[in-house]
Amino acid sequence: MTAEPVLAIDVMGGDEGAPVTMKAAELARKRYPELKFLLFGDETVIGEHLSGLPKLAERSSVVHTDVEVKGTDRPSQVLRTARRSSMGLAVQAVKAGEAQAAVSAGNTGALMAMAKLGLKTMPGIDRPALAALLPTMGTDSVMLDLGANSECDDENLIQFALMGAAFARIVLGVDEPKVAILNIGEEELKGTDEHKEAAEALKIASPGLAMEYTGFVEGDKIGRGDVDVIVSDGFSGNVALKTAEGTARLVVELLRRAFRSNLFSIIGFFMSRRVLKQLRSHLDPNAHNGAVFLGLNGLVVKSHGGANIEGFANAIGVARDLITDDIAHRIREDLARFEERRAVPEAAQ
Amino acid sequence: MTAEPVLAIDVMGGDEGAPVTMKAAELARKRYPELKFLLFGDETVIGEHLSGLPKLAERSSVVHTDVEVKGTDRPSQVLRTARRSSMGLAVQAVKAGEAQAAVSAGNTGALMAMAKLGLKTMPGIDRPALAALLPTMGTDSVMLDLGANSECDDENLIQFALMGAAFARIVLGVDEPKVAILNIGEEELKGTDEHKEAAEALKIASPGLAMEYTGFVEGDKIGRGDVDVIVSDGFSGNVALKTAEGTARLVVELLRRAFRSNLFSIIGFFMSRRVLKQLRSHLDPNAHNGAVFLGLNGLVVKSHGGANIEGFANAIGVARDLITDDIAHRIREDLARFEERRAVPEAAQ
Repeated sequence: MTAEPVLAIDVMGGDEGAPVTMKAAELARKRYPELKFLLFGDETVIGEHLSGLPKLAERSSVVHTDVEVKGTDRPSQVLRTARRSSMGLAVQAVKAGEAQAAVSAGNTGALMAMAKLGLKTMPGIDRPALAALLPTMGTDSVMLDLGANSECDDENLIQFALMGAAFARIVLGVDEPKVAILNIGEEELKGTDEHKEAAEALKIASPGLAMEYTGFVEGDKIGRGDVDVIVSDGFSGNVALKTAEGTARLVVELLRRAFRSNLFSIIGFFMSRRVLKQLRSHLDPNAHNGAVFLGLNGLVVKSHGGANIEGFANAIGVARDLITDDIAHRIREDLARFEERRAVPEAAQ
Repeated sequence: MTAEPVLAIDVMGGDEGAPVTMKAAELARKRYPELKFLLFGDETVIGEHLSGLPKLAERSSVVHTDVEVKGTDRPSQVLRTARRSSMGLAVQAVKAGEAQAAVSAGNTGALMAMAKLGLKTMPGIDRPALAALLPTMGTDSVMLDLGANSECDDENLIQFALMGAAFARIVLGVDEPKVAILNIGEEELKGTDEHKEAAEALKIASPGLAMEYTGFVEGDKIGRGDVDVIVSDGFSGNVALKTAEGTARLVVELLRRAFRSNLFSIIGFFMSRRVLKQLRSHLDPNAHNGAVFLGLNGLVVKSHGGANIEGFANAIGVARDLITDDIAHRIREDLARFEERRAVPEAAQ
């Protein structure tokens, strides 16, 4: 799309702020030499980091602001005060066309609110969705919506499916991603009317699209990795994502406690350390970092607040891949193809 | 409540059927000598088991049927043919007052449909809820609804909270259970209007009830065990429960694979076997077995289909505790107290 894509980085966002985001930007610069950076935040802080990173400095412009969005701020507060924050300015830069994507590790609610308000939904999309990668027994799966919308109708779910498939093609590198709708049973009768109607429409139209609609999937199958894209309303998607995180933490914590319980197991623990490290790295949120608001006129990537340098660099990498492969174009194509398919009577297909 | 409570057992339900359920009934008889059993299923099969279990035979009556509900049957099929099944007859026995509770390890959807249709909701309750125990880092938590209703309004959520608290008082033995509503954030602004209105009503009324309403809880906190009761619509509750199951399986599977990866870790694995066993037993569904349909005119307890003898006996134990402590009476009391509190203007409380 763009020979030298420009990324707007919210330097101050996240639990650590500049010490993480600046080093991550340097790491991303090494990985993707074509990138340019617009760095938003306190110019003194940024300047100090850049003085030790001359190659990054060469590829960057700094925009000063001393307004910060805190993790604890409510979205309603944020909107009033924080258009001038490092996060708000990064989103504005995308709106103004100065950058192709914004990356922030700041408050999710605030980022979502500013992204929606600033960038508006793209033509053909009624509501944006927050999409992210989940670890599974196989390769990662894409899941959306993770909380941009509490309530969704069938059209929203269909649009999420199309956007999720486009995202999966780029990020997972799968030509025809398997797409399923999250439900409380696999039979066609299950769930709300919205689920049934979205499923029906996707079933009919999907043979003409660059995806394979595979039906409903239940929560216990998310971790298996049988499908590439899991489509959900934002409420249950958010519940599923957070429940998965909490359960993984629970199991690891129980394991830690159990390992401490006797001498044999303590020795066993030391002998298994590499294994446990491997487990942790498979589940490490930093390896799957970079949730994306899809369906807006411009890209916004949300990093975990607690992401480390590698994690934030991965979020930058996601933004870079989505720009390079022009996800907006892919979504527009899919939407058009879907509407074409839907217009044809089923019997004629 | 009843000096000699009678339990209706669906002997044929579950993956194994009689070999598990009959031995579980015997185990339950030893634990709770006051119980009597109505055993529904193939009389030849049941008779063979009883001939080896004379003490159980003494406390039991057998009702023959050769109709069975299969795990794969659809609820709609089931309803047409299966009122004469072991499951259907067990529910009918509760309706007729011949038993105080039915216990089945059969198809959840079928059991739910027959329970709803046969027993109807109790006065003051608009919809029944499926409640179960979840393992956490602390003591177990009660969660409901787990899938009896895809869509719920604020009144449903309030009723679930009251029923869940009554269930927790009996099963967890907590005098004033902490009750929270599952949501996608902890702030009062989060979620749908139904969530906000239910939260508001519970916040106002809960000081007068035998429970403590603690606010919203997110999915990642379910596993921490900070609250005793987690209230949810049936859709996201089902998603959360199944996602937690799937994630626990994912983590344990990743662990198993990692342990196999090198010699050191294989030795470490053998030294840690007891630990891993302990972890498995903490998460073992059999230890938390016995989901309950609350809010009907009669008790129906659902066992995991794959429950072992211990697991099915635990489900029978849950039925026994709920009868002994008269959960229906407790729910009626709580409902009346809630309506009283609600009728008083907030300022006067």
